[in-house]
Amino acid sequence: MIINRKIPFKFLLNEIKIPLIIVVLLGFIFGLLPKYFPNFSPEIPIGIATTLGIAISILLSYKINQSYNRWWEARTIWGAIVNDSRSLVLQLQLYLNENDELLRKIAHYQIAWCYALDKSLRKQDVLSGWENLLNKEDLEKIKKQSNIPLAINQLQTEAVRKLYEKKTIEEFARTQLEVTLTRLVASMGKCERIKNTVFPPTYGQALNISIYLFVVFLSLSPVLQLNLFLQIIILLSISMLFFILQKLAHQLQDPFDNHETDTPMTSLSRTIEINIRQLLDEKDIPEPIQPKKFYLM
Amino acid sequence: MIINRKIPFKFLLNEIKIPLIIVVLLGFIFGLLPKYFPNFSPEIPIGIATTLGIAISILLSYKINQSYNRWWEARTIWGAIVNDSRSLVLQLQLYLNENDELLRKIAHYQIAWCYALDKSLRKQDVLSGWENLLNKEDLEKIKKQSNIPLAINQLQTEAVRKLYEKKTIEEFARTQLEVTLTRLVASMGKCERIKNTVFPPTYGQALNISIYLFVVFLSLSPVLQLNLFLQIIILLSISMLFFILQKLAHQLQDPFDNHETDTPMTSLSRTIEINIRQLLDEKDIPEPIQPKKFYLM
Amino acid sequence: MIINRKIPFKFLLNEIKIPLIIVVLLGFIFGLLPKYFPNFSPEIPIGIATTLGIAISILLSYKINQSYNRWWEARTIWGAIVNDSRSLVLQLQLYLNENDELLRKIAHYQIAWCYALDKSLRKQDVLSGWENLLNKEDLEKIKKQSNIPLAINQLQTEAVRKLYEKKTIEEFARTQLEVTLTRLVASMGKCERIKNTVFPPTYGQALNISIYLFVVFLSLSPVLQLNLFLQIIILLSISMLFFILQKLAHQLQDPFDNHETDTPMTSLSRTIEINIRQLLDEKDIPEPIQPKKFYLM
Amino acid sequence: MIINRKIPFKFLLNEIKIPLIIVVLLGFIFGLLPKYFPNFSPEIPIGIATTLGIAISILLSYKINQSYNRWWEARTIWGAIVNDSRSLVLQLQLYLNENDELLRKIAHYQIAWCYALDKSLRKQDVLSGWENLLNKEDLEKIKKQSNIPLAINQLQTEAVRKLYEKKTIEEFARTQLEVTLTRLVASMGKCERIKNTVFPPTYGQALNISIYLFVVFLSLSPVLQLNLFLQIIILLSISMLFFILQKLAHQLQDPFDNHETDTPMTSLSRTIEINIRQLLDEKDIPEPIQPKKFYLM
Amino acid sequence: MIINRKIPFKFLLNEIKIPLIIVVLLGFIFGLLPKYFPNFSPEIPIGIATTLGIAISILLSYKINQSYNRWWEARTIWGAIVNDSRSLVLQLQLYLNENDELLRKIAHYQIAWCYALDKSLRKQDVLSGWENLLNKEDLEKIKKQSNIPLAINQLQTEAVRKLYEKKTIEEFARTQLEVTLTRLVASMGKCERIKNTVFPPTYGQALNISIYLFVVFLSLSPVLQLNLFLQIIILLSISMLFFILQKLAHQLQDPFDNHETDTPMTSLSRTIEINIRQLLDEKDIPEPIQPKKFYLM
Repeated sequence: MIINRKIPFKFLLNEIKIPLIIVVLLGFIFGLLPKYFPNFSPEIPIGIATTLGIAISILLSYKINQSYNRWWEARTIWGAIVNDSRSLVLQLQLYLNENDELLRKIAHYQIAWCYALDKSLRKQDVLSGWENLLNKEDLEKIKKQSNIPLAINQLQTEAVRKLYEKKTIEEFARTQLEVTLTRLVASMGKCERIKNTVFPPTYGQALNISIYLFVVFLSLSPVLQLNLFLQIIILLSISMLFFILQKLAHQLQDPFDNHETDTPMTSLSRTIEINIRQLLDEKDIPEPIQPKKFYLM
Repeated sequence: MIINRKIPFKFLLNEIKIPLIIVVLLGFIFGLLPKYFPNFSPEIPIGIATTLGIAISILLSYKINQSYNRWWEARTIWGAIVNDSRSLVLQLQLYLNENDELLRKIAHYQIAWCYALDKSLRKQDVLSGWENLLNKEDLEKIKKQSNIPLAINQLQTEAVRKLYEKKTIEEFARTQLEVTLTRLVASMGKCERIKNTVFPPTYGQALNISIYLFVVFLSLSPVLQLNLFLQIIILLSISMLFFILQKLAHQLQDPFDNHETDTPMTSLSRTIEINIRQLLDEKDIPEPIQPKKFYLM
Repeated sequence: MIINRKIPFKFLLNEIKIPLIIVVLLGFIFGLLPKYFPNFSPEIPIGIATTLGIAISILLSYKINQSYNRWWEARTIWGAIVNDSRSLVLQLQLYLNENDELLRKIAHYQIAWCYALDKSLRKQDVLSGWENLLNKEDLEKIKKQSNIPLAINQLQTEAVRKLYEKKTIEEFARTQLEVTLTRLVASMGKCERIKNTVFPPTYGQALNISIYLFVVFLSLSPVLQLNLFLQIIILLSISMLFFILQKLAHQLQDPFDNHETDTPMTSLSRTIEINIRQLLDEKDIPEPIQPKKFYLM
Repeated sequence: MIINRKIPFKFLLNEIKIPLIIVVLLGFIFGLLPKYFPNFSPEIPIGIATTLGIAISILLSYKINQSYNRWWEARTIWGAIVNDSRSLVLQLQLYLNENDELLRKIAHYQIAWCYALDKSLRKQDVLSGWENLLNKEDLEKIKKQSNIPLAINQLQTEAVRKLYEKKTIEEFARTQLEVTLTRLVASMGKCERIKNTVFPPTYGQALNISIYLFVVFLSLSPVLQLNLFLQIIILLSISMLFFILQKLAHQLQDPFDNHETDTPMTSLSRTIEINIRQLLDEKDIPEPIQPKKFYLM
Repeated sequence: MIINRKIPFKFLLNEIKIPLIIVVLLGFIFGLLPKYFPNFSPEIPIGIATTLGIAISILLSYKINQSYNRWWEARTIWGAIVNDSRSLVLQLQLYLNENDELLRKIAHYQIAWCYALDKSLRKQDVLSGWENLLNKEDLEKIKKQSNIPLAINQLQTEAVRKLYEKKTIEEFARTQLEVTLTRLVASMGKCERIKNTVFPPTYGQALNISIYLFVVFLSLSPVLQLNLFLQIIILLSISMLFFILQKLAHQLQDPFDNHETDTPMTSLSRTIEINIRQLLDEKDIPEPIQPKKFYLM
């Protein structure tokens, strides 16, 4: 997640340098052509280019809107994970005896679950960095499954089951814990949905083609064929705007992909860890994750 | 569901070849007409065509937006089915004795339900490919009903009823299982709603007519009547953009129709099967569905 | 609900014939005026008309969007009615003894409730076509109330009350049934909200005036005043597009009004009847409602 | 709420007469200026005005969209109040003995609550028109609080508490009634949110300034400076469209403000009263509220 | 939150004075350049500037839309906090003995929680202004945690636990209180999400660049290069519109940032305090927060 109010211009430019080079080339080709081939003077009226420009703005706005909605949904899901993790511990403290060993265990499972979900969504090594939260036996169990966070949910379910069998919690408390775990399973599924569902690529491809078409049509407008340098400046400045927004939309679409615009899952997992450990009145509280330059992962 | 970030251009073009041929023909007719009938020179001002072009962009954006919402809703419903299927098994493991035969039975019913829903939405042979998950008696029962997934829900309800009658689960656990089954019935109903509700076709028909009108008006603009070849290139490139987006909207509207852009129901059903079988600690785990070329069904 | 992918063009045209005739008249009047009154040559620049044309497209898109949302909400509410009707029967079969007479009674009340809601929303004779589902005494009771579906809800509540008094269901089962009935009451209220809340008519009236203004301004543009026939063709083709979309928006706004674009309530009620009777393993299963021409009611 | 499909044109015009007079004045001033000060001929190209016109259309559409959403949300909240009021009575009839005096009391409290909420949102005398629904002691109690509907909720809570203390309802039934009351408290809070949150006025002010700017720029376009009368007709017709939509947006924003476009709270409260009294099988059923001219309050 | 229907123009202008000065400078530079360097006459066609102007309007509308949604979501979350705070007290009064000391304690915790959340979101001194609501021991406890509102939630949970241990409430009542507390934890998490998630700044930066580009292109249009004074008036009036809307969007994005457009959290917390104290029938009721000039904090 980007945390600065202003992103370095260099960063923005770096993301779209290839299309900008293509625009410069197109500008040169179609700007010089009439000079070497005087017979070739298509003179496309500027109305064609401006119509295309407005069409691109409209389509781009929709794309950004939908990409933003995905990105915001992703952030909302992780917000729900934060809430349910905190509530889970408060519920345990309401329904259990404070010093129960299983209380601490389920709370630690929850921290492990967050880190595991973070790493599995980012396609990183799922079983590293938090293994100490589980004992050896648990680790053996979850390694057998392909979906590690779901396997941790099963561990939690089993622990709640033991609480009930030991008569530590009543029937109703068991159900309330189950409801919270069900919500966490649902949040995990929602993250997987966003991760695995590619935004229809046709839209982006059609937009890209349109921007290049716009550049070509604009550079062939008779009113622009006076000054090659000025023409390229105009082409660059408008197409840059389109490409930056297109790139932004592209990144917001995939909020679990190790971009700078990602949902800050590692940082949120750390916040959850800090909150849970403080609620448990533990001593060793880790530090919050520090931002890298202008973003937070 | 399309899983590649880039769709082969050939595929896109193939989808819209008929309208493009019509555009070429219209371009020829209205481009050549003034040459053979010099008296016929309508000279429609380009403002008419550009206004229509902008109008089309606006209407198209709305259509894509609403189609995308349908497609995303369909995917979200199946995401909820994934979540509820997993939660159902975790609930059973929380409330039942681990080795209870009915636990495995309800879980297998759930796998069968997913495959049956997939096939019934795609209008394929509903009772094939997963029959081994049900015993003969169950198969007889569900064949009597016209809505097979709903019939499987009834089998699950009956099994939960038996659990309660055998005193295996308490009153409250029974209710929680019922709540999950109710959510699954609701997800099924939501899929049927999307499947059976045709997006108002007037909108798409009006858009199509507008695009052809746009092509005609543009080809009759005086500023374009210089070079037939160039004119057809311009007509093709802009109308191609419109037709691709129109086609995209059309496909996203119907996410259960055996398109490449479908919700990947078979693949998700397989994921559910793998997850459930691993949660049950079974041995024979099937492989995930492999994508075909650039999409997944 | 329209079920064909293509609506006959004749049907579309029939809906908007009056405004189209007005457009032709306006085109004649403002096209011929300068010929008879040469001094009258307003020559409104085409920019005015194109601006108005784009403004109309923007406002029209919003109107269609909001109308579509109403229409889709109406369909979603009836989807929820389908789901809750099915779940109600499954719940009864879970909580009750299979052969209990009240089970069948509540299920039949549910079928009656759907038909009664359908008819009361369409302002048809509410008490016909399904009376055989209720006995005489029940019919007497509900006739005393002005809201028939709500009266049937009261009958269901009473039946659930009897089940509990007879000790047939436990406290918790009673509550679950009540929750489902509450959801059905809410769905009914949502339908009434859509039915009774007129979409602000100012918007549609302002749009209509704008389209006629657009026609007048366009017909007075100097660039168009060359060929009366061509001018009227252009006026007709663009305004037709606007009027069709305006009409579409108008119909989608009111999804319970006996239009061809209505939510297919009768057909959905029949589906509910079929599903419920099959779940009850009854013998006399009615046929699904057949579509009329290109739509389903 | 407006209930006619067509609003009298006089009514629309009356709402926007001041801005229209300003437009006429502006048209005169900028139309006559060049005649008296021939040196003053700004000749602003029409492109500036058309761009501004399109910009206004876009911004206006968004404003109407958001205003409509507020208005629809307000209507939806009152729809939920209707549903919960009905369900509350059905719940009481399910859980209580039919002739219990408290049943009738809680139901009457509910009718009083609706009228009180209606009047408190409209800043009318809250304690009039429905006082007979409460006894003297209750009236004394609620007068001590600044939020009358909330005070009635407290009376209801107290009554439910008595039902439980008298052992008339079980633990679970008590909770279900509490859940319904909590939903009603939430609906009240949602109404207060809409009532007390002023839509950001900057947007509307910026739009108003833009419309006047548009009028000035348009009247200074060289192509329009031929015929003063015609010019003012054009200015009026386009700006009237903008002002009507701006006014509509303005009214939809505030659905509890004694406008003709208000949520019909008094009428809905009456419907609730009729429904509740019929469910209670009472004799004196009041008449529905009759519309005033073309709207319903 | 702004409470006046009209904001002083001075206030609006003050917010955007820097960009307006830049616009004046740009207008001077590009307006005077051709006079001193007659060879430099780029003559960019006005179509480029108008296209950019329309593109800016479209992108701006989307930004305002999304910013408004964030702002409205923030207000909705605090609306839910108001509702849940009221319901919590009503629930306690339903389930507890009226004079129970813990009832008053939990209600006072709730008031403290609201003020603490307000101050922690606004990055003010969290522990001031409401400390008297907690006793010394409680204050010690919550100071140990980094998230003060969450620590207060833990105090509430502990108090509910004591109620259950003292047998003051039943199992089911305990759960209902827990559900309300869980909702409050969720509302807190939602506020943190909005506070900590920076709206993608690329969008705003790209918009700003576009507005300056628009100014430059417009000032270089040949049709405008006649009258320097008039030109700057036009540049200022249109760019002012864009900058005001851009600024509005910017402020709505961050509703917890001590702006005049903030969610009025202090005022809402005070309302909650008044409501709770009146429900508890206390004597010392504080006054509502008074607005400062034209806004409420």
